[in-house]
Amino acid sequence: MAKVRPISGFPEWLPAQRLAEQQVLDRIREAFERFGFTPIETRAVEPLDWLLSKGETDKEIYVLRRLQAEAAEGERGGGEPDDAGLGLHFDLTVPFARYVAQNRARLAFPFRRYQIQKSWRGEKPQEGRYREFYQADADVIAEGELPLAYDAEMVEVLHEVTAAMPIPAVTVRINHRKVLEGFYRGLGVADPQPALRAADKLDKIGEQGVRELLAGEVGLDAAAAGKALELAGIRGADGASIAARVRALGVAHELLDRGLEELAWVLGAVAHLPAGAYEADLKIARGLDYYTGIVYEGTMAGYESLGAVCSGGRYDDLAAGGAAGGESGGGGGPKLPGTGISIGVSRILGKLFADGALGASRATPACVLVALTGEELRAESLAVARALRRRGIPCEVHPTAQKYGKQIRHAERKGIPYVWFPRGEATGGHEVRDIVTGEQAAADPERWQPPEEKRRVRLVTAGASPKP
Amino acid sequence: MAKVRPISGFPEWLPAQRLAEQQVLDRIREAFERFGFTPIETRAVEPLDWLLSKGETDKEIYVLRRLQAEAAEGERGGGEPDDAGLGLHFDLTVPFARYVAQNRARLAFPFRRYQIQKSWRGEKPQEGRYREFYQADADVIAEGELPLAYDAEMVEVLHEVTAAMPIPAVTVRINHRKVLEGFYRGLGVADPQPALRAADKLDKIGEQGVRELLAGEVGLDAAAAGKALELAGIRGADGASIAARVRALGVAHELLDRGLEELAWVLGAVAHLPAGAYEADLKIARGLDYYTGIVYEGTMAGYESLGAVCSGGRYDDLAAGGAAGGESGGGGGPKLPGTGISIGVSRILGKLFADGALGASRATPACVLVALTGEELRAESLAVARALRRRGIPCEVHPTAQKYGKQIRHAERKGIPYVWFPRGEATGGHEVRDIVTGEQAAADPERWQPPEEKRRVRLVTAGASPKP
Repeated sequence: MAKVRPISGFPEWLPAQRLAEQQVLDRIREAFERFGFTPIETRAVEPLDWLLSKGETDKEIYVLRRLQAEAAEGERGGGEPDDAGLGLHFDLTVPFARYVAQNRARLAFPFRRYQIQKSWRGEKPQEGRYREFYQADADVIAEGELPLAYDAEMVEVLHEVTAAMPIPAVTVRINHRKVLEGFYRGLGVADPQPALRAADKLDKIGEQGVRELLAGEVGLDAAAAGKALELAGIRGADGASIAARVRALGVAHELLDRGLEELAWVLGAVAHLPAGAYEADLKIARGLDYYTGIVYEGTMAGYESLGAVCSGGRYDDLAAGGAAGGESGGGGGPKLPGTGISIGVSRILGKLFADGALGASRATPACVLVALTGEELRAESLAVARALRRRGIPCEVHPTAQKYGKQIRHAERKGIPYVWFPRGEATGGHEVRDIVTGEQAAADPERWQPPEEKRRVRLVTAGASPKP
Repeated sequence: MAKVRPISGFPEWLPAQRLAEQQVLDRIREAFERFGFTPIETRAVEPLDWLLSKGETDKEIYVLRRLQAEAAEGERGGGEPDDAGLGLHFDLTVPFARYVAQNRARLAFPFRRYQIQKSWRGEKPQEGRYREFYQADADVIAEGELPLAYDAEMVEVLHEVTAAMPIPAVTVRINHRKVLEGFYRGLGVADPQPALRAADKLDKIGEQGVRELLAGEVGLDAAAAGKALELAGIRGADGASIAARVRALGVAHELLDRGLEELAWVLGAVAHLPAGAYEADLKIARGLDYYTGIVYEGTMAGYESLGAVCSGGRYDDLAAGGAAGGESGGGGGPKLPGTGISIGVSRILGKLFADGALGASRATPACVLVALTGEELRAESLAVARALRRRGIPCEVHPTAQKYGKQIRHAERKGIPYVWFPRGEATGGHEVRDIVTGEQAAADPERWQPPEEKRRVRLVTAGASPKP
């Protein structure tokens, strides 16, 4: 006998939570569209070689095979990839880069898109980390040059979008990969990646832990490790003062200068945002290898221990493989640099749902239950329902003729705020009962309007200072 | 070098098509919610044993494995299913049944839900059949008895939802599994399934083909096969006349009587729908084995050769496995019968997009491009964009300072209908240019309103009589 059970890492929500999630996704979509991002959706699968060419993620990928692979053998077409060579995407940036490379001739650049979809990673599930999760991404990819203004715009987008969500305030913390790379190269480190990853762990393993990693894995002496830790401790919203504090550490490299200059430009370009919305934080590195410039991540006020709830950065030429080999005309052409952000919707909602900090005012869109008080009156009840629906009032009809009280309890159980009686006891005509107050009054199916706060399901927030 | 390419059976749309698809999905969602269906979303994966216990679909399932299965070995928790035992769902009904069984104690019954998600099948791709596709489902599941009124409601839902979509009119064709089963049992057939499947192919292989199948596989004699073909030819909207025509064939069985009675009741209950919206069609059987009562499928006017674009039916106890073995409290309890519909969104849109019969008025949500005419004016341009966005007018800012003409061409290329100049040539102040007419006039960022038909992306229909 097949058993039903939750599967660790694959979250599912109850109806009221899904109603809340839907409204959150709507708000994200509207905010992205206000910035002129175009929606796209990519298939769930990518060829494994494409996924594997974009970073150290091999352990996380779910690979597909058909249950009856032999039977399938006969069906395979000529040039299409073997099913066994397909994996579920682990993020939305890598599929987007492929989509741009593939459709290059049919897109207008700089191409701005948003994408709200699930991704999959075969990681060990833990708080805030799922195997199946929603991400909401916005990116822009240019042909040739991508002006730095887009990196600054992404900080504003992250602020606006998270501010539109019913969640605690998000602070966007900004860094520049070239600042880190230039700094470590200036310290004499040939491959800065391990040092970046070590410093990125400051919040998790503390100063002493990072010091040990830098001495051990990276091979820095005590003085250099001290400077690296000082760099990782630098935070602030003013570009000039950040640059001065970094230069005071006495490390010089051309990459470092370029990084600091760009970082300061971006900080200046977002200075109109409210205090607390952003700051430079020089320990931020971001795990993914494909970032090459400005990087950001955001934490939620009161939920810092949850880690980054959004992140992003600039990547120089993620769509490169395609430009050379795809159907886009092949061969060379200008580069396709991009920059973008990703909001960890499931990570945020999973935590707020678990804490009871976010929910919905009821578990059904239905605003009215139309009662059926006799089988011979079915046509009448159906006609009321149609009249209400025509005016956009969600309703359902009680399926069988039952006593008044039983139908009222049906509505109560489902959280439906009103019951409609086509032949009310008081007037013999149409009457509407408010389930909460118990008031029942005559009503016209063509005219009656519920108050707006009962017509639609509302988001309900509670707990650690979520915005309304 | 990783290559980029389409993968057969995994459709992706260009931006204007995705904008159209999004509006279609919005309309479906709104229509479902007007009927009081609650949204849920289920994980993409189900345990293989659950998928396999629900019908003859083993050939179609995509099974997952982690790329580095050995490394994963150490991570496995106690009771959770092995990753290798997970498959992508092939429809939304089977996961829904599992969700209901699993959350039984936390749901209010009859539980009405809709679900708009992708499903996956490893079938050979062909026109109208994808390996990854959107379905939009609505179902109701009851504890104990599910009144027949819900089956009738599903016909109305199918009609209302497809009528709300920008597609040609859909006719819902209705049958009852018990009519078919009773008829064949009355003819002396012990296992009616092969006969049902044979008659269901009437449109594809013609009368002679069905006759041969019935004589060969099913073993009917010529007279019985003739009656079966006559049954398959019966169509009409009036229940009493349908029943009379079936009874005139001289086949009797208790199941047949019950089926005809229920079919007639449903036809009567939807008689208020417009002519052509529905009819009984006694050859409809539906492939899936789990249906046990009323079944329906819908075809689109002018696209009959595409086959069914929506379908559904009643299933007696699909959630059964869970009721006995899940976390729902286990052991017995009343049955969980359900009835529901499924709209093949990708099948419909794929065809309409391919025919150029559906699209969007532009390929970006942006209504305005705010020009940047000098780097020193950036703050001014950003302020205009913020003012427009605050009032819900989607816009983007040109990233670099360039000549007027170049920025106008940028807007033209992207299909953005207006360009905003913070320092216009005529007035020296704010001016808005209409890209189509070339008219340019003074405007106030806090007050200017585009006409509604240009503010939002509109659906554009053409070709074979789609509704507006």
